[in-house]
Amino acid sequence: MTLPLNPNLAATELPPVMEARRWTEGVTFPPDRPLINVSQAAPVEIPPLGLREAIAEAAINDPDAHLYGPVLGLPALRAEIARQFSAAYSGAIAPGQVAITQGCNQAFCAVMATLAAPGDEVILPVPWYFNHKMWLDMAGCTTRALDTGASLIPDAGAARALIGPKTRAIVLVTPNNPGGVEYPPETLAAFRDLAREHGIALVIDETYRDFDSRHSALTGGRPHDLFLDPDWADTVIQLYSFSKAYRMTGHRVGSVTASEKLLAEMEKFLDTVAICPGQLGQIGALWGMRNLTQWVAGERDEILRRREAMIAGFGALTGWKLLGCGAYFAYVEHPFDIASDALCQRLVRDCGILMLPGTFFCPEGSDAGRRQIRIAFANIGTEGIAEMFARLRDFRP
Amino acid sequence: MTLPLNPNLAATELPPVMEARRWTEGVTFPPDRPLINVSQAAPVEIPPLGLREAIAEAAINDPDAHLYGPVLGLPALRAEIARQFSAAYSGAIAPGQVAITQGCNQAFCAVMATLAAPGDEVILPVPWYFNHKMWLDMAGCTTRALDTGASLIPDAGAARALIGPKTRAIVLVTPNNPGGVEYPPETLAAFRDLAREHGIALVIDETYRDFDSRHSALTGGRPHDLFLDPDWADTVIQLYSFSKAYRMTGHRVGSVTASEKLLAEMEKFLDTVAICPGQLGQIGALWGMRNLTQWVAGERDEILRRREAMIAGFGALTGWKLLGCGAYFAYVEHPFDIASDALCQRLVRDCGILMLPGTFFCPEGSDAGRRQIRIAFANIGTEGIAEMFARLRDFRP
Repeated sequence: MTLPLNPNLAATELPPVMEARRWTEGVTFPPDRPLINVSQAAPVEIPPLGLREAIAEAAINDPDAHLYGPVLGLPALRAEIARQFSAAYSGAIAPGQVAITQGCNQAFCAVMATLAAPGDEVILPVPWYFNHKMWLDMAGCTTRALDTGASLIPDAGAARALIGPKTRAIVLVTPNNPGGVEYPPETLAAFRDLAREHGIALVIDETYRDFDSRHSALTGGRPHDLFLDPDWADTVIQLYSFSKAYRMTGHRVGSVTASEKLLAEMEKFLDTVAICPGQLGQIGALWGMRNLTQWVAGERDEILRRREAMIAGFGALTGWKLLGCGAYFAYVEHPFDIASDALCQRLVRDCGILMLPGTFFCPEGSDAGRRQIRIAFANIGTEGIAEMFARLRDFRP
Repeated sequence: MTLPLNPNLAATELPPVMEARRWTEGVTFPPDRPLINVSQAAPVEIPPLGLREAIAEAAINDPDAHLYGPVLGLPALRAEIARQFSAAYSGAIAPGQVAITQGCNQAFCAVMATLAAPGDEVILPVPWYFNHKMWLDMAGCTTRALDTGASLIPDAGAARALIGPKTRAIVLVTPNNPGGVEYPPETLAAFRDLAREHGIALVIDETYRDFDSRHSALTGGRPHDLFLDPDWADTVIQLYSFSKAYRMTGHRVGSVTASEKLLAEMEKFLDTVAICPGQLGQIGALWGMRNLTQWVAGERDEILRRREAMIAGFGALTGWKLLGCGAYFAYVEHPFDIASDALCQRLVRDCGILMLPGTFFCPEGSDAGRRQIRIAFANIGTEGIAEMFARLRDFRP
């Protein structure tokens, strides 16, 4: 016999990062030409010593670090996020409007479980972040794909046509994964107005906010005006991740900023799935917020240098077209008459480069996805980027 | 306007532990008569220094402790569980048949999401663990309540009548939360046979296995023979928690033991909800498994002493009836003509004791739940237990 299987789960695609990793199995990468892995947006370096020491110190001396905490997270961390985000966005965010989750993926799942039942619809711009699509598939929700064309910037007017009686939310990721584009404030305002008009949620995933090229915590300025609106909480839900800014992917800490009423409902989901976020990760995140502003600015400078190297590299590479470049990602159109998933497998074997094909980020059978590729350039330094372009120059499929 | 709300979530009850905590608000507990909180099964002491040092050492010196790990958990921890559980249950469990989760609640959610779609049915004996019921409600699954009578031990013959074409699993918790009873091996074997006959899963939650009165890692013996069956993986799914044995509730580490095929499907859920379990918690759990066998045996001895004190105390308390006592819990029938949720609120005000009413663990309107109460006695020492009985003796509602 075989155990029963939830058909919604069976119909959900395998995690793309794992599938892509399998392409490297059995392939030999010579020592003088090692694999360039630009498949996953994952820091490969560890957090600064101070943050690691703060965690170690708590592990030894803080009893609370080992015991259950509040479902919605450490009050001090919620208050720090509220304080810093209120300042960064020139808005009014209360500690009670912030919840901590076990990573930003869980933040998304918790928000969707709170808003949408099986059979409900959620709008995602294409290309999308695949884990968002996977959760909606698993939950039995329908994803409505919003085309973004060559600009990769979604249009609220186009989204209007996708809204129906079952629509519960529009999800925007900015700076965008996988597209690398930074959405203009006007785009976000237009989507907020559209969502409000229809009584649905606008969910913005700002996992990569600390690497926005337009502003930083030091330079000032803000990526959008959504929190300027005193009524933001009736429509806007913001997601954030501590994984990238503080290199703490292994600790699983994210956050949700939303109305207290929504968080009170979401608390049921988080209590059942998590009970509470891991304590040490929260302690590290709080230490990071209090001590690493300057350091994160340096991280951002380095990512922006790599971004410049990517823009220059594709400018000099015949046939390839850079569609978006920012956050951790370049999103490109390749020049070959071959589907991107097949091409990416060839790139592993012929060039020792692991990238993710656009097909992973687009609806099945999408024509656009067949020509597109995501490159997570933040993982490699400018030297690695130069080596990648040297290999791509010589590549003929 | 108001944001949309998933009706399945709206229909899910609030987390009972939080609701009960609200009963203490505004109540003054004099210093010489502090609140006795026996509402939650949560260790109040911290892990031994060695485990804390192992975590601190990794935080400083192990780069992998801060970065993404495999979705299904650290290979070394999966292998250690496979090795120790194979020995403990005289069975054959392979490392590939073990997955690590962010706590045992998440293990349950992940397994249910893998087995059951909205509209499917799952059988839970009554009284049930409320987070199990909450997840099924949120997921749009139907819970079929299996009555267990005064013995609190479910009967496979009675369960047969609840199985229909939509049934996907039977879930048993042993030692039981909230009932405190330890299910006989014959009960588990009969449920396994029933589940196998119908092609559904038998899920056993063994969160409290380390406190079973019948055996321990030092005395030898095993709580059931399910893993003796070479074909166990076609039917049996086991859940475990590191929170209780090693006092690491704040680190969120649990496990699922099941067929590799099921885990391959479940990986999609875990990738989307968690990406990976927190690394430091896993490192602590592994250190605990390798170094704390003797220490856990001492913990068990202490819990068993408290259990004896509970049995003796209720033996001497007029009118109250002890239905089950084991794991961290006593489950009792009270002698008063008043519903248990109202009675528990009276016990807070009049006696300074916070217990959870049976209504939290039973279907709405259940007659049995109105007379029953769960007492999480593991939280208090034998002196605290003596004080609790002194207060109960004088109590007249």
